[in-house]
Amino acid sequence: MFLTATPQSGHLDVLAALFLMWAAAKLMAELFERLRQPSVVGEILAGVLIGPSVLALVAPSEITSTLAEVGVIFLLFSVGLETKPHDIFRVGKNAAFVAILGVVVPFIAGFLLMRAWGSTNIESLFIGTAMVATSVGITARVLGQMGLIDTDASRIILGAAIIDDILGLFILAIVASAAEGRIDYVELMLTAAMAVGFTLFVAFVGAPAVTKMAPRIENLALENSFFVFGMILCLGLSVAASYIGVAAIIGAFLAGMALAEASEDKPRMHRQMAGVTEFLVPFFLVGIGMQLKLEVFRDPTVLVLTILVTLVAVATKLLGGGLGALSLGWRGAAQVGMGMVPRGEVGVVVAQIGLGLSVINDSLFGVVLFMAVATTLISPPLLKLLFAGEARPVETTT
Amino acid sequence: MFLTATPQSGHLDVLAALFLMWAAAKLMAELFERLRQPSVVGEILAGVLIGPSVLALVAPSEITSTLAEVGVIFLLFSVGLETKPHDIFRVGKNAAFVAILGVVVPFIAGFLLMRAWGSTNIESLFIGTAMVATSVGITARVLGQMGLIDTDASRIILGAAIIDDILGLFILAIVASAAEGRIDYVELMLTAAMAVGFTLFVAFVGAPAVTKMAPRIENLALENSFFVFGMILCLGLSVAASYIGVAAIIGAFLAGMALAEASEDKPRMHRQMAGVTEFLVPFFLVGIGMQLKLEVFRDPTVLVLTILVTLVAVATKLLGGGLGALSLGWRGAAQVGMGMVPRGEVGVVVAQIGLGLSVINDSLFGVVLFMAVATTLISPPLLKLLFAGEARPVETTT
Repeated sequence: MFLTATPQSGHLDVLAALFLMWAAAKLMAELFERLRQPSVVGEILAGVLIGPSVLALVAPSEITSTLAEVGVIFLLFSVGLETKPHDIFRVGKNAAFVAILGVVVPFIAGFLLMRAWGSTNIESLFIGTAMVATSVGITARVLGQMGLIDTDASRIILGAAIIDDILGLFILAIVASAAEGRIDYVELMLTAAMAVGFTLFVAFVGAPAVTKMAPRIENLALENSFFVFGMILCLGLSVAASYIGVAAIIGAFLAGMALAEASEDKPRMHRQMAGVTEFLVPFFLVGIGMQLKLEVFRDPTVLVLTILVTLVAVATKLLGGGLGALSLGWRGAAQVGMGMVPRGEVGVVVAQIGLGLSVINDSLFGVVLFMAVATTLISPPLLKLLFAGEARPVETTT
Repeated sequence: MFLTATPQSGHLDVLAALFLMWAAAKLMAELFERLRQPSVVGEILAGVLIGPSVLALVAPSEITSTLAEVGVIFLLFSVGLETKPHDIFRVGKNAAFVAILGVVVPFIAGFLLMRAWGSTNIESLFIGTAMVATSVGITARVLGQMGLIDTDASRIILGAAIIDDILGLFILAIVASAAEGRIDYVELMLTAAMAVGFTLFVAFVGAPAVTKMAPRIENLALENSFFVFGMILCLGLSVAASYIGVAAIIGAFLAGMALAEASEDKPRMHRQMAGVTEFLVPFFLVGIGMQLKLEVFRDPTVLVLTILVTLVAVATKLLGGGLGALSLGWRGAAQVGMGMVPRGEVGVVVAQIGLGLSVINDSLFGVVLFMAVATTLISPPLLKLLFAGEARPVETTT
């Protein structure tokens, strides 16, 4: 007997908003699949369409952003489920190299561009930071849909994106402290040490422990006990990660990785988890699209800066990430570089923090937002081109 | 890079709250399963434990109540998926009889009890109304776990609960109008006509249309197209139902029923849907538990009234529902009556509306809340006893 109140005309209640977001995402996904474009792009554009900038049918709210957050957590968890730890370690050196170059090049280039444009030091540092972190969710979704999640290039991208997120967070912490006029080096070192320790602990202690415990979990009295265990591990490590100052999605990814070997022969658990992910991910993708405010781009100066920042954002990740992966050959290097291009929700979060600290204004916020969305839109089709011919059929029966 | 802010001590952020709710639900469910009690009760008690009344770890918020609402929608959708329309029509006459007696008896008894206690007419009408509607979700979960969802008694309970909800809503609309000093008969008749028309339309036109369309849905370009179609139908009919003034869960149930025949041979879609339901339902159950405020029961008068109201609530549904199902024999009648006892979220919603209209005070709110939770707690174990010997093994491999 929920939601019985007759809504006033023009006011859409929560359930209707969720329905609209979900249905719009899937209609656009179907359209993009027919045009042979990645459905991810369609779902983000669905968000732009129904969001405040165009049709204004749904406004971002605490509920839509919570669902988006839980969605990206489960997305990274399911990516982790496909990633066996020893596979990541095999590409560890390459991934670290890609991550460091993919952070340093965009950060410096972004900073210099903004200084040349006449921005203050602190503004320039923020824009540089927003260019650093990779939104691995988008790339993971594209690679997953092409059945390419277990290639070397994919593993390097995912590994590098994790290191990237840690580095990006580190830089954000420094820049935000600087903006507030103080830098607490002890706290910074502590956070960094916690992040590294957490990752190593899950990889070396957690994963083997889970594999050993798996038979006992299946003998619990609960229904679907392995699925339940996976859910608790995913949500629990996400919370733990965010409490020690690392991104929640890193905890989710590590939870998936810890379960990867133990769940290999559990198709039932994988199907149920796929249901949860399929339900939640559209809220994440549509949520990104809804963040884009088109009206700030009426100012031609903002428009020019936006295009410059976006071009630099694409070029520097391609260059930095690609340089780090040259050992894979030109094509592999381009694949890795392109895989690192999307900034997605990570750039958006940096922009929101900058706006909250009054370090950047509405226009710069719009610039970063556009850059984050544009890099996210540009990457999937180009990534698909770069991986063309390698795609493997994915099971599609319903 | 979500949720990177370090939370202040004592303050749990959203993700941590969701994790706590989910983990507590499943820990209690495991405990109750080991004690051979229904896990539903464990999950509700988990809500009482972590809620404001006991440990105060999580407070109900807009987000938890939205997740609870979406959870009960998917619960009813999955119940509908197991309910083929012709099965319901077969028990239609019995169900209608059960529903009407199960509404009239508790309503009149509740009204008379409150009048005898010294309450005003309008207070008494509200308490009577809160006793009317059945929370089919709880019963459906217990029957589903016992593998008994397709017995005659189960079908009558589910069918009667749907009719019940429509009748309960109708009474609530009248009582709420009376509380505001006006009754709009035209609007009431319109709502009733819409509700009946909606149900008949989905059953007679929607279900056959869906069965016919099924092969075309599977040929869409989208991944998991049948699952996606099911999700859109479920959310869409829930929204449609609440817009025409019927409960959203009725729309969800009808959506499931419309898909029941078309999805019979789609185990993949059923697994994915089960994942979504398993993820969301704990938020519904824990949410009910969190609503219980224990402090109002320090007043002995409130305590006595609470016990009286709860006893009358149990006795009258057992009597009314049972009388309507006497054709099934004594045991069948008792099963149906007991299946109608839980008020769950429906009683809670009536109480909230009453509080919002300032028709009932905090103490009466507590009384109704306790009655709703207590009837929900009492019913599953007794239902399990009444169905003992009929339970069928449910697939439990993970």
